[in-house]
Amino acid sequence: MTYCVAIKLDEGLVFLSDTRTNAGMDNIAKFKKMFSWEIPGDRCITMMTAGNLAITQAVISLLQENIDRPDNGLETILSAPSMFRIVELVGDAMQVVQNRYGPGLSQSGESTASSILVGGQRSGGEHRLFHVYSAGNFIEATTETPYFQIGEHKYGKPILDRIIAPDTPLNVCVTAALLSMDSTLRSNLSVGMPLDLTVLETDKLVFSQNRRIEEFDPDFQRLSQEWSGALRKAFDEMIHLTV
Amino acid sequence: MTYCVAIKLDEGLVFLSDTRTNAGMDNIAKFKKMFSWEIPGDRCITMMTAGNLAITQAVISLLQENIDRPDNGLETILSAPSMFRIVELVGDAMQVVQNRYGPGLSQSGESTASSILVGGQRSGGEHRLFHVYSAGNFIEATTETPYFQIGEHKYGKPILDRIIAPDTPLNVCVTAALLSMDSTLRSNLSVGMPLDLTVLETDKLVFSQNRRIEEFDPDFQRLSQEWSGALRKAFDEMIHLTV
Repeated sequence: MTYCVAIKLDEGLVFLSDTRTNAGMDNIAKFKKMFSWEIPGDRCITMMTAGNLAITQAVISLLQENIDRPDNGLETILSAPSMFRIVELVGDAMQVVQNRYGPGLSQSGESTASSILVGGQRSGGEHRLFHVYSAGNFIEATTETPYFQIGEHKYGKPILDRIIAPDTPLNVCVTAALLSMDSTLRSNLSVGMPLDLTVLETDKLVFSQNRRIEEFDPDFQRLSQEWSGALRKAFDEMIHLTV
Repeated sequence: MTYCVAIKLDEGLVFLSDTRTNAGMDNIAKFKKMFSWEIPGDRCITMMTAGNLAITQAVISLLQENIDRPDNGLETILSAPSMFRIVELVGDAMQVVQNRYGPGLSQSGESTASSILVGGQRSGGEHRLFHVYSAGNFIEATTETPYFQIGEHKYGKPILDRIIAPDTPLNVCVTAALLSMDSTLRSNLSVGMPLDLTVLETDKLVFSQNRRIEEFDPDFQRLSQEWSGALRKAFDEMIHLTV
Protein backbone atom coordinates (compact mmCIF):
# COMPACT_ATOMS: atom_id res chain seq x y z
CA MET A 1 0.00 0.00 0.00
CA THR A 2 0.91 3.67 -0.01
CA TYR A 3 -0.18 6.92 1.49
CA CYS A 4 0.50 10.19 -0.32
CA VAL A 5 -1.14 13.55 0.25
CA ALA A 6 -0.69 16.76 -1.75
CA ILE A 7 -2.24 20.07 -0.70
CA LYS A 8 -2.66 23.31 -2.62
CA LEU A 9 -2.81 26.47 -0.53
CA ASP A 10 -2.71 30.15 -1.38
CA GLU A 11 0.83 30.14 0.06
CA GLY A 12 2.04 27.14 -1.94
CA LEU A 13 2.06 23.36 -2.29
CA VAL A 14 2.82 20.63 0.25
CA PHE A 15 3.61 17.02 -0.70
CA LEU A 16 4.06 14.12 1.73
CA SER A 17 4.52 10.43 0.96
CA ASP A 18 5.49 7.23 2.74
CA THR A 19 7.96 4.77 1.18
CA ARG A 20 6.50 1.30 1.79
CA THR A 21 5.33 -1.02 -0.95
CA ASN A 22 4.03 -4.52 -0.62
CA ALA A 23 3.08 -7.41 -2.85
CA GLY A 24 1.06 -9.40 -0.34
CA MET A 25 1.70 -9.21 3.40
CA ASP A 26 4.96 -11.15 3.17
CA ASN A 27 6.71 -9.11 0.53
CA ILE A 28 7.41 -5.63 1.83
CA ALA A 29 9.97 -3.24 0.40
CA LYS A 30 10.98 0.38 0.52
CA PHE A 31 10.52 2.42 -2.65
CA LYS A 32 10.59 6.17 -3.19
CA LYS A 33 7.20 7.38 -4.42
CA MET A 34 8.01 11.08 -4.67
CA PHE A 35 9.92 12.59 -7.60
CA SER A 36 10.89 16.22 -8.09
CA TRP A 37 12.35 18.30 -10.90
CA GLU A 38 13.60 21.83 -10.38
CA ILE A 39 14.92 24.49 -12.76
CA PRO A 40 15.35 27.43 -10.37
CA GLY A 41 13.44 30.47 -11.55
CA ASP A 42 11.75 28.50 -14.33
CA ARG A 43 9.78 25.55 -12.89
CA CYS A 44 9.39 23.17 -9.95
CA ILE A 45 7.48 19.92 -10.40
CA THR A 46 6.73 17.18 -7.86
CA MET A 47 4.97 13.87 -8.53
CA MET A 48 3.82 11.15 -6.13
CA THR A 49 2.67 7.70 -7.21
CA ALA A 50 0.37 4.94 -5.96
CA GLY A 51 -0.95 1.68 -7.36
CA ASN A 52 0.87 -0.85 -9.53
CA LEU A 53 4.56 -0.10 -8.87
CA ALA A 54 5.81 -1.40 -12.23
CA ILE A 55 3.34 0.86 -14.03
CA THR A 56 4.13 4.02 -12.05
CA GLN A 57 7.90 3.43 -12.18
CA ALA A 58 7.66 3.00 -15.95
CA VAL A 59 5.73 6.28 -16.27
CA ILE A 60 8.35 8.19 -14.26
CA SER A 61 11.21 6.51 -16.18
CA LEU A 62 9.60 7.34 -19.51
CA LEU A 63 9.25 11.01 -18.54
CA GLN A 64 12.89 11.04 -17.38
CA GLU A 65 14.08 9.17 -20.49
CA ASN A 66 12.63 11.88 -22.71
CA ILE A 67 14.45 14.54 -20.64
CA ASP A 68 17.73 12.59 -20.84
CA ARG A 69 17.57 12.24 -24.63
CA PRO A 70 17.07 15.77 -25.89
CA ASP A 71 18.20 14.67 -29.40
CA ASN A 72 14.85 12.82 -29.68
CA GLY A 73 13.33 16.27 -30.09
CA LEU A 74 10.33 15.33 -27.94
CA GLU A 75 8.51 17.78 -25.72
CA THR A 76 9.28 16.98 -22.06
CA ILE A 77 8.04 18.07 -18.65
CA LEU A 78 11.08 20.38 -18.51
CA SER A 79 10.37 21.99 -21.91
CA ALA A 80 6.55 22.13 -21.72
CA PRO A 81 5.22 25.69 -21.52
CA SER A 82 2.71 25.24 -18.65
CA MET A 83 1.64 23.03 -15.75
CA PHE A 84 -1.39 22.02 -17.79
CA ARG A 85 0.82 20.80 -20.63
CA ILE A 86 3.10 19.03 -18.12
CA VAL A 87 0.21 17.05 -16.65
CA GLU A 88 -0.95 16.19 -20.19
CA LEU A 89 2.51 14.70 -20.85
CA VAL A 90 2.21 12.67 -17.62
CA GLY A 91 -1.21 11.43 -18.75
CA ASP A 92 0.21 10.54 -22.18
CA ALA A 93 3.04 8.57 -20.56
CA MET A 94 0.48 6.77 -18.37
CA GLN A 95 -1.47 5.78 -21.51
CA VAL A 96 1.67 4.52 -23.27
CA VAL A 97 2.61 2.35 -20.28
CA GLN A 98 -0.94 1.10 -19.68
CA ASN A 99 -1.28 0.13 -23.35
CA ARG A 100 2.03 -1.75 -23.22
CA TYR A 101 1.45 -3.77 -20.02
CA GLY A 102 -2.28 -3.48 -19.28
CA PRO A 103 -3.52 -6.37 -21.44
CA GLY A 104 -0.91 -8.81 -20.05
CA LEU A 105 -1.64 -7.76 -16.46
CA SER A 106 -5.40 -8.06 -16.96
CA GLN A 107 -4.92 -11.51 -18.48
CA SER A 108 -3.17 -12.73 -15.33
CA GLY A 109 -5.78 -11.06 -13.13
CA GLU A 110 -3.46 -8.32 -11.85
CA SER A 111 -4.66 -4.78 -11.27
CA THR A 112 -3.19 -2.05 -13.45
CA ALA A 113 -4.78 0.69 -11.33
CA SER A 114 -2.31 3.51 -10.78
CA SER A 115 -2.52 7.16 -9.92
CA ILE A 116 -0.09 10.04 -9.90
CA LEU A 117 -0.36 13.38 -8.15
CA VAL A 118 1.36 16.14 -10.14
CA GLY A 119 1.92 19.59 -8.67
CA GLY A 120 4.18 22.54 -9.26
CA GLN A 121 4.59 25.92 -10.83
CA ARG A 122 5.94 27.17 -14.14
CA SER A 123 7.28 30.71 -14.44
CA GLY A 124 4.47 32.98 -15.63
CA GLY A 125 1.74 30.60 -14.46
CA GLU A 126 -0.06 29.73 -11.25
CA HIS A 127 0.95 26.90 -8.91
CA ARG A 128 -1.37 23.98 -9.69
CA LEU A 129 -2.11 20.46 -8.45
CA PHE A 130 -3.50 17.53 -10.46
CA HIS A 131 -4.55 13.92 -9.92
CA VAL A 132 -3.79 11.67 -12.93
CA TYR A 133 -5.77 8.42 -13.20
CA SER A 134 -4.93 5.08 -14.81
CA ALA A 135 -6.50 6.14 -18.13
CA GLY A 136 -4.29 9.23 -18.31
CA ASN A 137 -7.22 11.56 -17.59
CA PHE A 138 -6.92 13.95 -14.67
CA ILE A 139 -8.67 16.36 -12.31
CA GLU A 140 -7.35 19.55 -10.70
CA ALA A 141 -7.49 20.69 -7.07
CA THR A 142 -9.77 23.67 -6.45
CA THR A 143 -10.52 25.98 -3.54
CA GLU A 144 -13.42 23.66 -2.53
CA THR A 145 -11.18 20.56 -2.60
CA PRO A 146 -7.67 21.83 -2.00
CA TYR A 147 -6.04 18.42 -1.42
CA PHE A 148 -5.69 14.99 -3.01
CA GLN A 149 -4.86 11.71 -1.30
CA ILE A 150 -3.82 8.48 -3.01
CA GLY A 151 -3.41 5.01 -1.51
CA GLU A 152 -4.71 4.34 2.02
CA HIS A 153 -6.64 7.60 2.41
CA LYS A 154 -9.28 6.94 5.06
CA TYR A 155 -7.42 7.07 8.37
CA GLY A 156 -5.73 10.38 7.54
CA LYS A 157 -8.71 12.17 6.00
CA PRO A 158 -10.61 13.48 9.08
CA ILE A 159 -7.71 15.70 10.26
CA LEU A 160 -7.31 17.20 6.78
CA ASP A 161 -11.04 17.91 6.50
CA ARG A 162 -10.99 19.70 9.82
CA ILE A 163 -7.87 21.82 9.22
CA ILE A 164 -7.15 22.45 5.53
CA ALA A 165 -8.55 25.45 3.67
CA PRO A 166 -6.89 27.50 0.90
CA ASP A 167 -5.86 30.20 3.38
CA THR A 168 -4.25 27.77 5.86
CA PRO A 169 -0.61 28.83 6.42
CA LEU A 170 2.04 26.53 4.93
CA ASN A 171 3.57 25.53 8.29
CA VAL A 172 0.13 24.64 9.71
CA CYS A 173 -0.56 22.58 6.62
CA VAL A 174 2.75 20.69 6.99
CA THR A 175 1.76 19.81 10.58
CA ALA A 176 -1.70 18.64 9.43
CA ALA A 177 -0.14 16.51 6.68
CA LEU A 178 2.30 14.93 9.15
CA LEU A 179 -0.51 14.13 11.64
CA SER A 180 -2.61 12.72 8.79
CA MET A 181 0.38 10.46 7.97
CA ASP A 182 0.82 9.61 11.67
CA SER A 183 -2.78 8.32 11.92
CA THR A 184 -2.27 6.25 8.77
CA LEU A 185 1.05 4.78 9.95
CA ARG A 186 -0.60 3.71 13.23
CA SER A 187 -3.52 1.98 11.55
CA ASN A 188 -2.15 0.40 8.38
CA LEU A 189 0.97 -1.79 8.49
CA SER A 190 1.44 -1.45 4.74
CA VAL A 191 2.19 2.27 5.09
CA GLY A 192 5.65 2.88 6.55
CA MET A 193 8.51 5.22 7.36
CA PRO A 194 10.65 6.96 6.18
CA LEU A 195 8.65 9.85 4.73
CA ASP A 196 9.39 12.26 1.90
CA LEU A 197 8.30 15.87 2.37
CA THR A 198 8.38 18.64 -0.22
CA VAL A 199 7.20 22.22 0.15
CA LEU A 200 6.98 24.75 -2.67
CA GLU A 201 6.12 28.36 -1.84
CA THR A 202 4.01 30.28 -4.36
CA ASP A 203 6.06 32.20 -6.96
CA LYS A 204 9.42 31.21 -5.43
CA LEU A 205 10.23 28.71 -8.22
CA VAL A 206 12.67 26.84 -5.96
CA PHE A 207 11.68 24.21 -3.42
CA SER A 208 11.86 25.49 0.14
CA GLN A 209 11.87 21.91 1.50
CA ASN A 210 12.66 18.66 -0.26
CA ARG A 211 13.75 16.15 2.30
CA ARG A 212 13.44 12.75 3.90
CA ILE A 213 12.14 12.19 7.46
CA GLU A 214 13.84 9.02 8.74
CA GLU A 215 12.25 6.34 10.91
CA PHE A 216 13.54 7.58 14.26
CA ASP A 217 13.49 11.29 13.51
CA PRO A 218 13.23 12.79 17.03
CA ASP A 219 11.09 15.74 15.92
CA PHE A 220 8.54 13.53 14.17
CA GLN A 221 8.48 11.18 17.16
CA ARG A 222 7.84 14.11 19.49
CA LEU A 223 5.01 15.39 17.28
CA SER A 224 3.46 11.92 17.26
CA GLN A 225 3.69 11.58 21.05
CA GLU A 226 2.41 15.07 21.81
CA TRP A 227 -0.50 14.50 19.42
CA SER A 228 -1.41 11.32 21.29
CA GLY A 229 -1.37 13.25 24.55
CA ALA A 230 -3.39 16.15 23.18
CA LEU A 231 -6.02 13.80 21.70
CA ARG A 232 -6.33 12.00 25.01
CA LYS A 233 -6.78 15.34 26.79
CA ALA A 234 -9.41 16.39 24.23
CA PHE A 235 -11.22 13.10 24.79
CA ASP A 236 -11.12 13.45 28.57
CA GLU A 237 -12.96 16.75 28.21
CA MET A 238 -15.81 14.89 26.46
CA ILE A 239 -16.45 12.35 29.20
CA HIS A 240 -18.55 14.73 31.32
CA LEU A 241 -21.01 15.12 28.42
CA THR A 242 -23.82 12.61 28.67
CA VAL A 243 -25.74 11.55 25.59
CA MET B 1 -22.98 0.70 3.99
CA THR B 2 -23.11 0.30 7.75
CA TYR B 3 -21.09 1.05 10.82
CA CYS B 4 -21.49 -1.06 13.94
CA VAL B 5 -19.13 -1.34 16.90
CA ALA B 6 -19.36 -3.67 19.90
CA ILE B 7 -17.00 -3.44 22.86
CA LYS B 8 -16.36 -5.87 25.70
CA LEU B 9 -15.13 -4.35 28.96
CA ASP B 10 -14.68 -5.71 32.46
CA GLU B 11 -17.76 -3.65 33.40
CA GLY B 12 -19.94 -4.91 30.56
CA LEU B 13 -20.78 -4.67 26.85
CA VAL B 14 -21.51 -1.65 24.65
CA PHE B 15 -23.20 -1.87 21.23
CA LEU B 16 -23.67 1.01 18.79
CA SER B 17 -25.02 0.89 15.24
CA ASP B 18 -26.19 3.29 12.55
CA THR B 19 -29.37 2.62 10.55
CA ARG B 20 -28.54 3.48 6.93
CA THR B 21 -28.46 0.95 4.11
CA ASN B 22 -27.82 1.58 0.46
CA ALA B 23 -27.94 -0.33 -2.79
CA GLY B 24 -25.88 2.04 -4.89
CA MET B 25 -25.61 5.75 -4.17
CA ASP B 26 -29.17 6.45 -5.33
CA ASN B 27 -31.03 3.92 -3.25
CA ILE B 28 -30.75 4.75 0.42
CA ALA B 29 -33.04 3.47 3.14
CA LYS B 30 -33.28 3.22 6.91
CA PHE B 31 -33.11 -0.26 8.45
CA LYS B 32 -32.56 -1.35 12.01
CA LYS B 33 -29.34 -3.35 12.31
CA MET B 34 -29.43 -3.99 16.04
CA PHE B 35 -31.59 -6.71 17.62
CA SER B 36 -31.89 -7.55 21.31
CA TRP B 37 -33.48 -10.33 23.34
CA GLU B 38 -33.87 -10.12 27.11
CA ILE B 39 -35.12 -12.60 29.73
CA PRO B 40 -34.43 -10.64 32.91
CA GLY B 41 -32.26 -12.61 35.30
CA ASP B 42 -31.61 -15.31 32.71
CA ARG B 43 -30.02 -13.84 29.58
CA CYS B 44 -29.47 -10.70 27.50
CA ILE B 45 -28.39 -10.99 23.87
CA THR B 46 -27.68 -8.26 21.32
CA MET B 47 -26.80 -8.74 17.65
CA MET B 48 -25.72 -6.22 15.01
CA THR B 49 -25.55 -6.97 11.31
CA ALA B 50 -23.62 -5.76 8.24
CA GLY B 51 -23.32 -6.87 4.63
CA ASN B 52 -26.03 -8.24 2.37
CA LEU B 53 -29.26 -7.03 4.00
CA ALA B 54 -31.45 -9.86 2.66
CA ILE B 55 -29.02 -12.42 4.09
CA THR B 56 -28.73 -10.82 7.55
CA GLN B 57 -32.47 -10.15 7.82
CA ALA B 58 -33.16 -13.81 6.95
CA VAL B 59 -30.72 -14.97 9.64
CA ILE B 60 -32.40 -12.80 12.30
CA SER B 61 -35.89 -13.89 11.12
CA LEU B 62 -34.89 -17.55 11.20
CA LEU B 63 -33.63 -17.21 14.78
CA GLN B 64 -36.85 -15.42 15.76
CA GLU B 65 -39.03 -17.94 13.88
CA ASN B 66 -37.58 -20.77 15.96
CA ILE B 67 -38.34 -18.82 19.15
CA ASP B 68 -41.91 -18.10 18.00
CA ARG B 69 -42.65 -21.77 17.23
CA PRO B 70 -41.72 -23.62 20.39
CA ASP B 71 -43.77 -26.65 19.20
CA ASN B 72 -41.00 -27.26 16.61
CA GLY B 73 -38.94 -28.45 19.56
CA LEU B 74 -35.82 -26.79 18.21
CA GLU B 75 -33.09 -25.34 20.40
CA THR B 76 -33.21 -21.53 20.18
CA ILE B 77 -31.07 -18.63 21.33
CA LEU B 78 -33.50 -18.28 24.27
CA SER B 79 -33.21 -21.94 25.30
CA ALA B 80 -29.50 -22.51 24.59
CA PRO B 81 -27.46 -23.09 27.76
CA SER B 82 -24.55 -20.71 27.07
CA MET B 83 -23.34 -17.76 24.99
CA PHE B 84 -21.07 -20.16 23.11
CA ARG B 85 -24.04 -22.31 22.12
CA ILE B 86 -26.04 -19.19 21.21
CA VAL B 87 -23.36 -18.01 18.78
CA GLU B 88 -23.18 -21.53 17.31
CA LEU B 89 -26.92 -21.28 16.58
CA VAL B 90 -26.36 -17.90 14.89
CA GLY B 91 -23.58 -19.46 12.80
CA ASP B 92 -25.84 -22.38 11.89
CA ALA B 93 -28.60 -19.99 10.79
CA MET B 94 -26.04 -18.06 8.71
CA GLN B 95 -25.05 -21.32 6.97
CA VAL B 96 -28.67 -22.25 6.26
CA VAL B 97 -29.37 -18.85 4.71
CA GLN B 98 -26.09 -18.73 2.76
CA ASN B 99 -26.76 -22.21 1.35
CA ARG B 100 -30.27 -21.18 0.30
CA TYR B 101 -29.42 -17.87 -1.44
CA GLY B 102 -25.64 -17.90 -1.92
CA PRO B 103 -25.50 -19.80 -5.24
CA GLY B 104 -28.17 -17.58 -6.85
CA LEU B 105 -26.51 -14.39 -5.61
CA SER B 106 -23.08 -15.52 -6.81
CA GLN B 107 -24.53 -16.40 -10.21
CA SER B 108 -25.78 -12.84 -10.65
CA GLY B 109 -22.48 -11.43 -9.39
CA GLU B 110 -23.87 -10.16 -6.08
CA SER B 111 -21.90 -10.37 -2.87
CA THR B 112 -23.22 -12.64 -0.13
CA ALA B 113 -20.71 -11.28 2.39
CA SER B 114 -22.39 -10.71 5.74
CA SER B 115 -21.28 -10.48 9.32
CA ILE B 116 -23.02 -10.44 12.66
CA LEU B 117 -21.72 -9.30 16.02
CA VAL B 118 -23.24 -11.33 18.86
CA GLY B 119 -22.78 -10.33 22.49
CA GLY B 120 -24.48 -10.92 25.77
CA GLN B 121 -24.53 -12.87 28.98
CA ARG B 122 -26.29 -16.02 30.14
CA SER B 123 -26.92 -16.58 33.82
CA GLY B 124 -24.06 -18.62 35.27
CA GLY B 125 -21.68 -17.64 32.47
CA GLU B 126 -19.42 -14.72 31.57
CA HIS B 127 -20.44 -11.84 29.31
CA ARG B 128 -18.98 -12.58 25.87
CA LEU B 129 -18.70 -10.99 22.44
CA PHE B 130 -18.37 -12.77 19.08
CA HIS B 131 -17.98 -11.90 15.41
CA VAL B 132 -19.80 -14.33 13.09
CA TYR B 133 -18.62 -14.48 9.45
CA SER B 134 -20.44 -15.37 6.23
CA ALA B 135 -19.46 -19.03 6.54
CA GLY B 136 -20.99 -19.27 10.02
CA ASN B 137 -17.56 -19.46 11.67
CA PHE B 138 -16.73 -16.94 14.38
CA ILE B 139 -14.09 -15.36 16.58
CA GLU B 140 -14.35 -14.03 20.13
CA ALA B 141 -13.22 -10.70 21.59
CA THR B 142 -10.31 -10.98 24.05
CA THR B 143 -8.51 -8.63 26.42
CA GLU B 144 -6.00 -7.86 23.63
CA THR B 145 -8.76 -7.05 21.14
CA PRO B 146 -11.75 -5.98 23.21
CA TYR B 147 -13.83 -4.61 20.35
CA PHE B 148 -15.20 -5.55 16.93
CA GLN B 149 -16.29 -3.27 14.13
CA ILE B 150 -18.29 -4.25 11.04
CA GLY B 151 -19.05 -2.18 7.94
CA GLU B 152 -17.16 1.08 7.38
CA HIS B 153 -14.60 0.60 10.13
CA LYS B 154 -11.61 2.78 9.19
CA TYR B 155 -12.65 6.32 10.09
CA GLY B 156 -13.79 5.34 13.57
CA LYS B 157 -10.93 3.02 14.49
CA PRO B 158 -8.19 5.45 15.66
CA ILE B 159 -10.26 6.81 18.58
CA LEU B 160 -11.10 3.27 19.76
CA ASP B 161 -7.46 2.20 19.58
CA ARG B 162 -6.43 5.17 21.69
CA ILE B 163 -9.14 4.84 24.37
CA ILE B 164 -10.49 1.32 24.73
CA ALA B 165 -8.95 -1.23 27.13
CA PRO B 166 -10.72 -3.89 29.20
CA ASP B 167 -10.64 -1.69 32.30
CA THR B 168 -12.14 1.38 30.57
CA PRO B 169 -15.29 2.45 32.48
CA LEU B 170 -18.59 1.85 30.69
CA ASN B 171 -19.54 5.54 30.42
CA VAL B 172 -16.12 6.42 28.95
CA CYS B 173 -16.53 3.59 26.45
CA VAL B 174 -19.97 4.86 25.40
CA THR B 175 -18.44 8.30 24.72
CA ALA B 176 -15.60 6.70 22.69
CA ALA B 177 -18.11 4.64 20.68
CA LEU B 178 -20.22 7.75 19.96
CA LEU B 179 -17.16 9.74 18.83
CA SER B 180 -16.06 6.79 16.68
CA MET B 181 -19.52 6.92 15.08
CA ASP B 182 -19.31 10.72 14.74
CA SER B 183 -16.06 10.47 12.70
CA THR B 184 -17.65 7.82 10.49
CA LEU B 185 -20.85 9.82 9.93
CA ARG B 186 -18.79 12.85 8.88
CA SER B 187 -16.68 10.93 6.37
CA ASN B 188 -18.99 8.35 4.81
CA LEU B 189 -22.36 9.40 3.39
CA SER B 190 -23.58 5.80 3.42
CA VAL B 191 -23.50 5.70 7.24
CA GLY B 192 -26.37 7.69 8.77
CA MET B 193 -28.47 8.66 11.76
CA PRO B 194 -30.43 7.64 13.80
CA LEU B 195 -28.26 5.42 16.00
CA ASP B 196 -29.10 2.45 18.19
CA LEU B 197 -27.25 2.16 21.51
CA THR B 198 -27.33 -0.77 23.92
CA VAL B 199 -25.42 -1.17 27.17
CA LEU B 200 -25.30 -4.33 29.26
CA GLU B 201 -23.58 -4.22 32.65
CA THR B 202 -21.74 -7.35 33.75
CA ASP B 203 -23.87 -9.80 35.80
CA LYS B 204 -26.95 -7.52 35.77
CA LEU B 205 -28.82 -9.71 33.23
CA VAL B 206 -31.02 -6.77 32.21
CA PHE B 207 -30.07 -4.09 29.72
CA SER B 208 -29.22 -0.80 31.38
CA GLN B 209 -29.65 1.07 28.07
CA ASN B 210 -31.42 -0.01 24.91
CA ARG B 211 -32.41 3.06 23.00
CA ARG B 212 -32.44 5.09 19.80
CA ILE B 213 -30.55 8.37 19.35
CA GLU B 214 -32.51 10.41 16.79
CA GLU B 215 -31.06 12.62 14.06
CA PHE B 216 -31.30 15.94 15.89
CA ASP B 217 -30.69 14.65 19.41
CA PRO B 218 -29.37 17.79 21.16
CA ASP B 219 -26.97 15.87 23.43
CA PHE B 220 -25.37 14.01 20.53
CA GLN B 221 -25.11 17.26 18.54
CA ARG B 222 -23.43 18.97 21.48
CA LEU B 223 -20.95 16.08 21.86
CA SER B 224 -20.16 16.29 18.15
CA GLN B 225 -19.61 20.07 18.27
CA GLU B 226 -17.53 20.04 21.44
CA TRP B 227 -15.39 17.24 20.01
CA SER B 228 -14.73 19.36 16.90
CA GLY B 229 -13.67 22.25 19.10
CA ALA B 230 -11.47 20.08 21.34
CA LEU B 231 -9.75 18.49 18.33
CA ARG B 232 -9.08 21.91 16.85
CA LYS B 233 -7.59 23.05 20.17
CA ALA B 234 -5.44 19.90 20.35
CA PHE B 235 -4.21 20.56 16.83
CA ASP B 236 -3.41 24.20 17.57
CA GLU B 237 -1.10 23.01 20.34
CA MET B 238 0.87 21.02 17.74
CA ILE B 239 1.62 23.93 15.40
CA HIS B 240 4.56 25.22 17.46
CA LEU B 241 6.34 21.87 17.02
CA THR B 242 8.61 21.95 13.98
CA VAL B 243 9.57 18.73 12.25
